[in-house]
Amino acid sequence: MFKINDNFRNIGESYLFSDIARKVSHYLDENPDANIIRLGIGDVTLPLCATVVDTLISASREQAHSDTFQGYGPEQGHKFLRELIVRNDYASRGVSLDYDEIFISDGAKSDIANIGDILSADNLAAITDPVYPVYLDTNIMTGRPVHMLPCNEDNDFLPKLPVSVRPDIIYLCYPNNPTGVAMTYDELGEWVDYANHIGALILFDSAYEAYISDNDVPHSIFEIEGAKTCAIEFRSYSKTAGFTGLRCGYTVVPKELMSGNVKLNDLWRRRQSTKFNGASYVVQRAAAALYTDEGQRAIRQNIDYYMANAALLKNSLTNCGLRVYGGKNAPYLWVKAPDKLGSWNFFDILLKEANVVTTPGIGFGSQGEGYMRLTAFSTHESTKDAASRIHKLFNK
Amino acid sequence: MFKINDNFRNIGESYLFSDIARKVSHYLDENPDANIIRLGIGDVTLPLCATVVDTLISASREQAHSDTFQGYGPEQGHKFLRELIVRNDYASRGVSLDYDEIFISDGAKSDIANIGDILSADNLAAITDPVYPVYLDTNIMTGRPVHMLPCNEDNDFLPKLPVSVRPDIIYLCYPNNPTGVAMTYDELGEWVDYANHIGALILFDSAYEAYISDNDVPHSIFEIEGAKTCAIEFRSYSKTAGFTGLRCGYTVVPKELMSGNVKLNDLWRRRQSTKFNGASYVVQRAAAALYTDEGQRAIRQNIDYYMANAALLKNSLTNCGLRVYGGKNAPYLWVKAPDKLGSWNFFDILLKEANVVTTPGIGFGSQGEGYMRLTAFSTHESTKDAASRIHKLFNK
Repeated sequence: MFKINDNFRNIGESYLFSDIARKVSHYLDENPDANIIRLGIGDVTLPLCATVVDTLISASREQAHSDTFQGYGPEQGHKFLRELIVRNDYASRGVSLDYDEIFISDGAKSDIANIGDILSADNLAAITDPVYPVYLDTNIMTGRPVHMLPCNEDNDFLPKLPVSVRPDIIYLCYPNNPTGVAMTYDELGEWVDYANHIGALILFDSAYEAYISDNDVPHSIFEIEGAKTCAIEFRSYSKTAGFTGLRCGYTVVPKELMSGNVKLNDLWRRRQSTKFNGASYVVQRAAAALYTDEGQRAIRQNIDYYMANAALLKNSLTNCGLRVYGGKNAPYLWVKAPDKLGSWNFFDILLKEANVVTTPGIGFGSQGEGYMRLTAFSTHESTKDAASRIHKLFNK
Repeated sequence: MFKINDNFRNIGESYLFSDIARKVSHYLDENPDANIIRLGIGDVTLPLCATVVDTLISASREQAHSDTFQGYGPEQGHKFLRELIVRNDYASRGVSLDYDEIFISDGAKSDIANIGDILSADNLAAITDPVYPVYLDTNIMTGRPVHMLPCNEDNDFLPKLPVSVRPDIIYLCYPNNPTGVAMTYDELGEWVDYANHIGALILFDSAYEAYISDNDVPHSIFEIEGAKTCAIEFRSYSKTAGFTGLRCGYTVVPKELMSGNVKLNDLWRRRQSTKFNGASYVVQRAAAALYTDEGQRAIRQNIDYYMANAALLKNSLTNCGLRVYGGKNAPYLWVKAPDKLGSWNFFDILLKEANVVTTPGIGFGSQGEGYMRLTAFSTHESTKDAASRIHKLFNK
C-alpha cells in the first residue's frame, strides 16, 4: 500500500495568497462596485520591454525552420546566456565566475525550492521570521528541522547570529522580502564569516538586487570575501525585467563550495540533469536580450518607475503617522499597524475602508504579526490613489 | 556542519547521453570528416508548425502592452489550456476529467521526477528494466527502495506482475521508451486491477501516446476502468509537437486518487504551488494552438513523418537479419545485437563502421545489455542513409 510523504500534513492547507484572494473575492461579491487597488501579491505591472519582445519574436521565428530549430538545450542553460551573466552580473562587480557555475532555470522559486534535494534532511535550517513562505514550507515538506531567526524593530529586521543553536543551512534574502530592508557589506560579511566558521551553507536569495540604491549594500553575496566556500546565490529576472509570466532565473553554485570532497556544483548539475530539462529556449534568448544596452536601459527605467512608487508610498504613509520600513533598496514596504492592530485586522480595514489589498505580515511568520507588506509594483496612478486613500484613513 | 543528501553517492557520476556525446566527440576528433548520423538521443528534428509559431509571436506581442501583459499565472497552468486538454485529449476518448485534475508544467520530465516529493521515501518502487533512467535515478536520489521488473524477449518486453514483492509505486511507460513496445487494453487492465487490489500507485508515462497506431492500445491509462483510483498520468508536447526546446507538458491527478483521507490532487497542487511558478505563458498559448484543426493536422503530419522513418528502419534492419522490436506504436526501435555482442560493442561498431550514433541498451538497465535503441526522429534522408549503411554492414 503506497504511503504519502507525511511531512505534507505539517504544512498549512492553503497558501497565503489564496487566502487573500478569497477575502478579496468575497468582498467584491458584496461590493461589486468597489474600486480595488492591489498592492498585495508581488506581481509586476509594466509590460516587457521592446527588445525582449522583439527577441522573443525572432527566436520564435527561428523555430519555424529546420536549420534554426532548437530542440533540447543543455539542462543547465544555453552557454550564450550563462556567459552574459558571468560578464554582466558578476565580472562587472569584480566577481570572477566560470560559465558552468551558472545554472539557468524557469525561475528562482523553483531553484530555491528544489535546492533541498541535494541536502540532507537532517540539516538544521535557519530561516528568518518573517520570511518568503517558500523557504519554510519546502523544509517542512522534507521534514527538515527549522530554527527561526526573529527579525523585528528591536534588531532593525536583521537576524542576529544564532547563539543557542548551530544551523547547517541558513536562508538569507537581502534586500528582503517582505520587510524591504537590506544588509550592508559588513552585515552580510559577518554571516559569511560565521558560516565558514561553523561549516554552514548560506542559501542567498538575491532576487531584488537590482533595486539596491545604497552603495554600501552588496548586489551579490560573492562580493564578500569567502562567500564562494559557503554560499549558493539565487537570481531572478521576474522583478527586474517583468519575467513573472515568462519564467527565467538562475542559480550560482561556485566550484569551491564543497562538502568533504564533494562539489555542490556537481550535485546541482546532476539534480538538474535528472529532474529538469532546461528553461524554454525562446525565454533564454529573451533573457539574453536584457544584457544589450537597450535591455539595460529598459530595466533601469522599470526599476526607477517602481522605486518612485515606493518613495511615494513611504512618504505618504510616514506623513500620516504610520511607521514604514524598506522601500529604499527593495520594492517592498513593511508597515507597522497602528493601535496594536493585528495583521489581518489591518488588512481588513485597508480592504474595506480604503479598498486597498495588502499582504498581512502574519502570513510571513509570527514576527510579522502587526505589520503589512505593500509592494511598489502597481502603476503610478494606482499607487498614488492608494497612498492618498490610506493617508486619508489614518490622518485623523 | 551541513551535510549533503548522501543518496547522491549511489547514482552514477554521469548521465548516459553525456557518455555517448563524449564517445562521438572523441571519434570525430580522430575522424573529422566522418559523416555522422545521430539516431541516439530522442530529440526531434522537424521545426514547430506554423500555427504554433504564429501563436508564440502573437502571445509575445501581447506582452509589450500593459493591458494585455501577463505576469504570474496559476502555478497549475492557465485554465484555457487545461480546459482544452480535458476536452480534446480525454473527453474525446470517453474519459471525463475536471480541468483542475490537469496540472500544466515545463515538461513531463520535471513532473515525473518531482512527483516523488509527495510520496514517502519508504515506498517500494517497481521499475521496468530497461527503463528511461529518470525513474530510477530520482528514486535513488530519494533513497527509495527499488524493485526491477525485467523486460526481455522471454516476456515480449512486458513486465510480469510481481510475485515475490508487493510494490507500493509502479512506473509504467507504454508505448515504451526504450523498447518501443505497447500494452493493449487487456494488458494494462491487469496492472490497474493489480494496483487497486494491493493499494499501489501507478505512475503512467504516456509521452508517446500520439504514436499509437493499433486500435487495441490505450492512449491514456484512464481509458481503463478503475484507473482513477490508482494512477497518475504524465503527458508531453515534446515528441508530439516538437516542444523539446519550448518546454511544456502536463500531469493528470484524478480527485478520486486517495491515500486514506488525503487526495493526491491536493498534495500535488500544494507541491506545485510551493515549488513551481507555472509554465511560461507564451508557451502555454503555443500549446493551446495545438488543439486547433491546423495544430492537429500539423501534429498528425509530424507523427506520420517520423513513423515513416520507423517503418523504413524496421524494414531495412529486419531484412538484413537483425531482430527489431517496437517502431509500430512508438518512435523507438529496440534492436538486438547480432552474434551476442554487448551493447557498447554494438554501439562502437555502428559508430565506427556505419557512422551511426545509437543508444546502447545497457544504458537503460541490465536487461538492455545486447540491445540498442534507435529513434525515428531524424530526417527522412538521414534515416534512409543510416538504414542503408546498417543494412550494408550486416547484410553479408
